[in-house]
Amino acid sequence: MDGNDRQAARNRGRFRDLGLTALNLVSSPGAGKTALLERTLAEFGRDTPCAAVVGDLATDRDARRLGRWKAPVAQITTGSACHLDAFMVAHAVDRLDLAGARLLFIENVGNLVCPAAFDLGESVRVVLLSAAEGEDKPLKYPPIFKSADVVLLTKIDVAGVLGFDVEEAAENVRRMAPQARIVRLSARSGAGLDQWYYLLGAMVRRE
Amino acid sequence: MDGNDRQAARNRGRFRDLGLTALNLVSSPGAGKTALLERTLAEFGRDTPCAAVVGDLATDRDARRLGRWKAPVAQITTGSACHLDAFMVAHAVDRLDLAGARLLFIENVGNLVCPAAFDLGESVRVVLLSAAEGEDKPLKYPPIFKSADVVLLTKIDVAGVLGFDVEEAAENVRRMAPQARIVRLSARSGAGLDQWYYLLGAMVRRE
Repeated sequence: MDGNDRQAARNRGRFRDLGLTALNLVSSPGAGKTALLERTLAEFGRDTPCAAVVGDLATDRDARRLGRWKAPVAQITTGSACHLDAFMVAHAVDRLDLAGARLLFIENVGNLVCPAAFDLGESVRVVLLSAAEGEDKPLKYPPIFKSADVVLLTKIDVAGVLGFDVEEAAENVRRMAPQARIVRLSARSGAGLDQWYYLLGAMVRRE
Repeated sequence: MDGNDRQAARNRGRFRDLGLTALNLVSSPGAGKTALLERTLAEFGRDTPCAAVVGDLATDRDARRLGRWKAPVAQITTGSACHLDAFMVAHAVDRLDLAGARLLFIENVGNLVCPAAFDLGESVRVVLLSAAEGEDKPLKYPPIFKSADVVLLTKIDVAGVLGFDVEEAAENVRRMAPQARIVRLSARSGAGLDQWYYLLGAMVRRE
């Protein structure tokens, strides 16, 4: 862990020197990280240069999904590792042309547990919780929620049909993560994306 | 790992001596393990004595959800561990009155990665993939699917509204896990539960 923390600090310095804000996106498998990034690169990325690093155990499907826009994208495959670490991110970033980029999205392996303990050098940790997962997940997976700067409640367009109580979920997030900004959104319907883009814009300006 | 494997072998012998078939249920957070167990204990468990052990990082919510039926239930809280291990299961089982029980459901921590490497002493590994997670998850999380005896495609009642192609998902399961029985079901609508109970019945009879 010490080695990871030192590398994370190096990553953080490098991102700062490049004028980049790095976001670490964490969630269960299938909570919609890639779908949100696709739309974010297509829309927010039109005017604000972005880059992305995506982690999976296997396949380059996510990099191919995200490669249709102008943002540079690198895939990391971890084999059997349940999280990204700061070294993997450093190697992936070496393969990207980051000139001019202002935001770097790091899509972690789908996992609500392991990524909590691994600093990647990000400035902002974003935890996604989808309407399909149940309102109680913040209570059952405390470490990741306690480490979140932003919590996105995703797939809210299907909350009704899934019987998901968005307000109860938000209340559970507030209990475990009073520090976190909460945004309710759907990458499919577009609901709430204006707030997400507003947040991203503020992150760019802060640098 | 050697220590875990030895303990898993001891658990397996103990379950065999008790006439118990143990199932290890693994999935992402929110794929519906607890919902399926609730209904299974209420319906299948009415005639066939069952018991359950449930794992979470924190809270005893799942044990309380499952405690409304006659089956004995024990909660394991792992703190920050991303999977159950054979020792945790042995300690939890010590707290249960298993006299007469024929099936033991072990609900793992919600995680598609870490549980793959840890034998708990189960006879049957069951991996759940919900319609909310995307058809590609078997390709992206190979180890857990390759280790599955049964794959349950869950929440199929909302597959349409979520745009989830059940047949594509099943095809991806067959590619990664040709050994696995596949059952499509919904614990909410009840679709497919007859097949699940039929499978469970066959497991009981095998012992």
